[in-house]
Amino acid sequence: MTQTTTDVDTLAINTIRFLAVDMVERAKSGHPGAPMGQAALGYLLFTRHLRHDPTDPGWPDRDRFVLSCGHASALLYTLLHLSGYDLPMEELQRFRQLGSRTAGHPESHLTPGVETTTGPLGQGLGNAVGMAIAQRMAAATFNVDDYPVVDHRIWALASDGDLMEGVASEACSLAGHHRLGRLNVFYDDNRISIDGPTSLTFTEDVGRRFEAYGWQVLRVADGNDLAALDEATRMAAAEEGRPTLVVVRTHIGYGSPGKQDTAAAHGAPLGPEEVAATRRALGWPEEAFHVPEETREVFAAARQRGRRTHTEWRELFERYAAEHPGPAADFRARLEGRLPDGWEAGLPRFSPDDGPLATRKASGAVIAGIAPRLPWLAGGSADLAGSNNTYQKGAGDFSPGNPGAPNIHFGVREHAMGAVLNGMALTRMQIPYGGTFLIFSDYMRPSVRLAALMGLPVLYIFTHDSIFLGEDGPTHQPVSQLMGLRAIPNLTVIRPGDANETVEGWRLALANRTGPTALVLTRQKLPILAETAARAATGVPRGGYVLADAEGGEPEALLIATGSEVPLALAAREKLAGEGVPVRVVSLPCWEVFGAQNREYRDSVLPPGVRKRLAVEAGSPLGWERWVGDAGDVLGVERFGASAPYQDLATEYGFTVDNVVRRLRALLG
Amino acid sequence: MTQTTTDVDTLAINTIRFLAVDMVERAKSGHPGAPMGQAALGYLLFTRHLRHDPTDPGWPDRDRFVLSCGHASALLYTLLHLSGYDLPMEELQRFRQLGSRTAGHPESHLTPGVETTTGPLGQGLGNAVGMAIAQRMAAATFNVDDYPVVDHRIWALASDGDLMEGVASEACSLAGHHRLGRLNVFYDDNRISIDGPTSLTFTEDVGRRFEAYGWQVLRVADGNDLAALDEATRMAAAEEGRPTLVVVRTHIGYGSPGKQDTAAAHGAPLGPEEVAATRRALGWPEEAFHVPEETREVFAAARQRGRRTHTEWRELFERYAAEHPGPAADFRARLEGRLPDGWEAGLPRFSPDDGPLATRKASGAVIAGIAPRLPWLAGGSADLAGSNNTYQKGAGDFSPGNPGAPNIHFGVREHAMGAVLNGMALTRMQIPYGGTFLIFSDYMRPSVRLAALMGLPVLYIFTHDSIFLGEDGPTHQPVSQLMGLRAIPNLTVIRPGDANETVEGWRLALANRTGPTALVLTRQKLPILAETAARAATGVPRGGYVLADAEGGEPEALLIATGSEVPLALAAREKLAGEGVPVRVVSLPCWEVFGAQNREYRDSVLPPGVRKRLAVEAGSPLGWERWVGDAGDVLGVERFGASAPYQDLATEYGFTVDNVVRRLRALLG
Repeated sequence: MTQTTTDVDTLAINTIRFLAVDMVERAKSGHPGAPMGQAALGYLLFTRHLRHDPTDPGWPDRDRFVLSCGHASALLYTLLHLSGYDLPMEELQRFRQLGSRTAGHPESHLTPGVETTTGPLGQGLGNAVGMAIAQRMAAATFNVDDYPVVDHRIWALASDGDLMEGVASEACSLAGHHRLGRLNVFYDDNRISIDGPTSLTFTEDVGRRFEAYGWQVLRVADGNDLAALDEATRMAAAEEGRPTLVVVRTHIGYGSPGKQDTAAAHGAPLGPEEVAATRRALGWPEEAFHVPEETREVFAAARQRGRRTHTEWRELFERYAAEHPGPAADFRARLEGRLPDGWEAGLPRFSPDDGPLATRKASGAVIAGIAPRLPWLAGGSADLAGSNNTYQKGAGDFSPGNPGAPNIHFGVREHAMGAVLNGMALTRMQIPYGGTFLIFSDYMRPSVRLAALMGLPVLYIFTHDSIFLGEDGPTHQPVSQLMGLRAIPNLTVIRPGDANETVEGWRLALANRTGPTALVLTRQKLPILAETAARAATGVPRGGYVLADAEGGEPEALLIATGSEVPLALAAREKLAGEGVPVRVVSLPCWEVFGAQNREYRDSVLPPGVRKRLAVEAGSPLGWERWVGDAGDVLGVERFGASAPYQDLATEYGFTVDNVVRRLRALLG
Repeated sequence: MTQTTTDVDTLAINTIRFLAVDMVERAKSGHPGAPMGQAALGYLLFTRHLRHDPTDPGWPDRDRFVLSCGHASALLYTLLHLSGYDLPMEELQRFRQLGSRTAGHPESHLTPGVETTTGPLGQGLGNAVGMAIAQRMAAATFNVDDYPVVDHRIWALASDGDLMEGVASEACSLAGHHRLGRLNVFYDDNRISIDGPTSLTFTEDVGRRFEAYGWQVLRVADGNDLAALDEATRMAAAEEGRPTLVVVRTHIGYGSPGKQDTAAAHGAPLGPEEVAATRRALGWPEEAFHVPEETREVFAAARQRGRRTHTEWRELFERYAAEHPGPAADFRARLEGRLPDGWEAGLPRFSPDDGPLATRKASGAVIAGIAPRLPWLAGGSADLAGSNNTYQKGAGDFSPGNPGAPNIHFGVREHAMGAVLNGMALTRMQIPYGGTFLIFSDYMRPSVRLAALMGLPVLYIFTHDSIFLGEDGPTHQPVSQLMGLRAIPNLTVIRPGDANETVEGWRLALANRTGPTALVLTRQKLPILAETAARAATGVPRGGYVLADAEGGEPEALLIATGSEVPLALAAREKLAGEGVPVRVVSLPCWEVFGAQNREYRDSVLPPGVRKRLAVEAGSPLGWERWVGDAGDVLGVERFGASAPYQDLATEYGFTVDNVVRRLRALLG
């Protein structure tokens, strides 16, 4: 280490190393190598650069530190513990155990000070880009002269694995485009991946690639050189005009005589003998979980500085609130997740005379109606804004020159969009939404799942939701996607049957503050139904409801439908009624919400005594047995689609009134 | 255009433009702008550079042309038609209609001359990288002095949307690493995306980025300059040491007075007035689908040259076959999809005494056993080779210095892996496989779906298949993935219950030549069962079977399980038998195959009279109702997992013998 590294620094850095090593040893699993190599950088950031107050991890203007390489969780937990976050030593000692706050990979909903849930590689970088977008947007919204109430930075630490992932490429290209100067990323260039040296497969010039994205690229030749790291960190912070990547040459398993610079240090405990050898090599006591008093002191001093900075900010915000009470109240409401009073007055109302209308267009009308009353609503589309109807007209495009504008052009980068939305939602400064075709939800599925795991209120606008997108053909026609999304825990999936159900779906989505919601919308026009005008407002919030009961109220059979198949079910009911067969139509736009209703309500909609049930949905039938039961049947799509006008596909795939009637009659025998 | 463009060239290029325009007009949907801008490049490649024989699109040593921007399908269909592929004018006129061979986006299983199915952006580039890997591997395997029987190139055309997608970044980084000199990509730099100018969101320096990947980067300032395009194409072909990106400045909607260089030319017909104006601007006759005789002639001449080249190759191959009959027979067998005789002799056999063994380890033993007899088996892992047990020990790593080795290090690039596997499978020169954790199947899901759509025999080795991967926690624990994969049409999903079922699963997978297969395998050890030793060989090929019948053969209830829950079900059956409750255990490793059995067989396994059924599977319960029915129940995972040793998770999530017994007894009342 260089001359500027004091003994206290060395002690503190080795404290971090060995706490991480000891955690992994005790857990008998985990990743010791990365923390050992990154300890100096982590120490530097947490004690000298990060603007944070460990006693209040919710401080809204704190810097964010994102550990994109989540497998290095022992580094983060160690830093949080030493910094004074509510993560006592007992938690470090319960690393990776049931019920601990020190999960194998960092989980933001579990551990104070963990800013986002990472582990699936590349996601954290995308989240960091989202946080930097959110920071800039919020700064443009709230900051006024002399009151820089939003003034923080985003720091991220990424591994070679993060940088190999496509989601990171997408996100970092977007960050460069937007010149997100508040974003600074350290690349832990240890040249070792799980399978061996990165030279096996990853020989691109990472720095040059990031320069091509428009980033400042700095290099630190020795990841233990605190002075060089400090200088690079200062340069990163000083560059406001573009994001910075600092390529830091580190050594995985630093200090381990037998495993440093090998893949063996990556994903398994060093083992007692190697731990002992490493202790000897670095002059560390044998006692496990040893923390020298000097280490405690240096982190305590940093904590004091952090509290002071936080106090200053709080005083600043109080003066701001006195002079600018409206924005200050808005700021607080966002943090608390309270929607502004009266936002719902902006919701459009539809009557059958307004139709036919695609539900994606109805959704666009919702956005147009509520956005002026709900300025936190920010988002966009992956280059399909016109098709997804996600654009807030007249509100401007988010860009370096217009940082407060809510419309984000994500480009053809669905996966980054998903990760960016997560980062934005984590700040609570916006209600973020993103649109693409339903088929391309597959491209962003890892981010959708993480939103669900973290419980983030992200909105997805997935349009062109079935084979009925028509001519673009099977490459663009979703079959498995709808059911694939329903399989994700804590994701609410809503497929409205017309414009009225779309309005209620939006209401449901915005009320859901504990998880993401996917609105699944048609390309094609649908009639606006008198039945939904009458009943969607009470029915959709319960997930499913009786849209049109059988004549006389005693159904012989049920037709259960969602989305564009709802009007088809109604038409079939009409025809069957004419033939003397009384059939009830149930609209089931949201399985998750319906499934959470009490049995009494569910049975009132789907009476157990009515066992002849036909589900109609233009997607994979897998899973529909839950609602139709043993005596029921499903009219779904069991193969890939085809390129043709959608009316021809309706005939080809059996989504016609005649076929629905035929299938239901077959059930009735 | 430059002086080297002759009148014939201009005529031919405009023929392509207007055929594409007319196709879109007649279909009333589609993308005219890209073909209009790319017409000169397409013309140049198809008439002067592509080594192909339109009368035999299956020629194994043909050059591959991949239209990664599949929305420009009208360009490709036009070129195929004019070149003399079996795609008559009537098909062009039925663009995007039901049953035509001219789908909205190119489909390789539908249209002769279409090399891969594209449209979802970035995929085609990944396929092209896979084709280039396959080419190099096959060349190393088959070529001998004087007999370069594998000597073709891969050409791809990509749009800004392709290059924004992460999958393309991953694939192109991999291509640079492997110095795939036979891969040449043209970037259609028209600076227009759907939402408007690319300056809205895509301002990175693409050329510099590809240089960072290790590619040769060339630039053509005018996409209508045939001489410059020709020169760049020659330079691309001449560079054997690295892949080439040619950045071609084109104009979307070239020639349209009102729509050139605007997003309006991208995804909708020009409209009759604008078409007329464009005809006037380019001096084109009013007649729709006009093809001048000169255009026919120039393509006919190219076709003659192609046939001659093909004939020469055929003669070369005949001499090769005479001198090297073994390799020639192998070459032919690969093309025909015939596995070598006796390959199954390499399959391992397991007995209970060999256990316990994780199914991922059993799969590794299968690979080790069959690879020497099945040299086409090539693949690897996304940086988890040791964990996925996908590595062919002693066979070497595919690299520029060892081009015939079968082990590919994909890096942490799951999505590129999926797209590359598709490209490899399309050549039929290898049986490609790829491994990662099941959770990361989400990262590659778009490619998996396309493999299913194309009907490609790709194998996926998805290990760490449930919450029972343990300490890594919920970020890494699949819940929705297994069912999400089952929802994809034409994907076969196999989750074996022990080593014996794993062997049979592999046999089933290799027998499936018309679609991809996913093997879903445990991290944790499982006992090797006497029951599977006796019955897996006949049972697994039927998808599901009676693993252990109730004492006396009259079950009161069924326990249906897959994977690691099979031994749990057996233990519960044992306990229930001791308590006087006769229960049958059904192992259901493959839903798709079981569902395809006749009713008699299915009913023999799941007797309709036995309605008390408990399914046990550590994944989303969604969909299990299909097998358990109204009177059944599912023990699944309905929330995200947790970080803990897997034994603790078994207790926490109820996967214990006691809980299975309790749940079954609750069913029995």
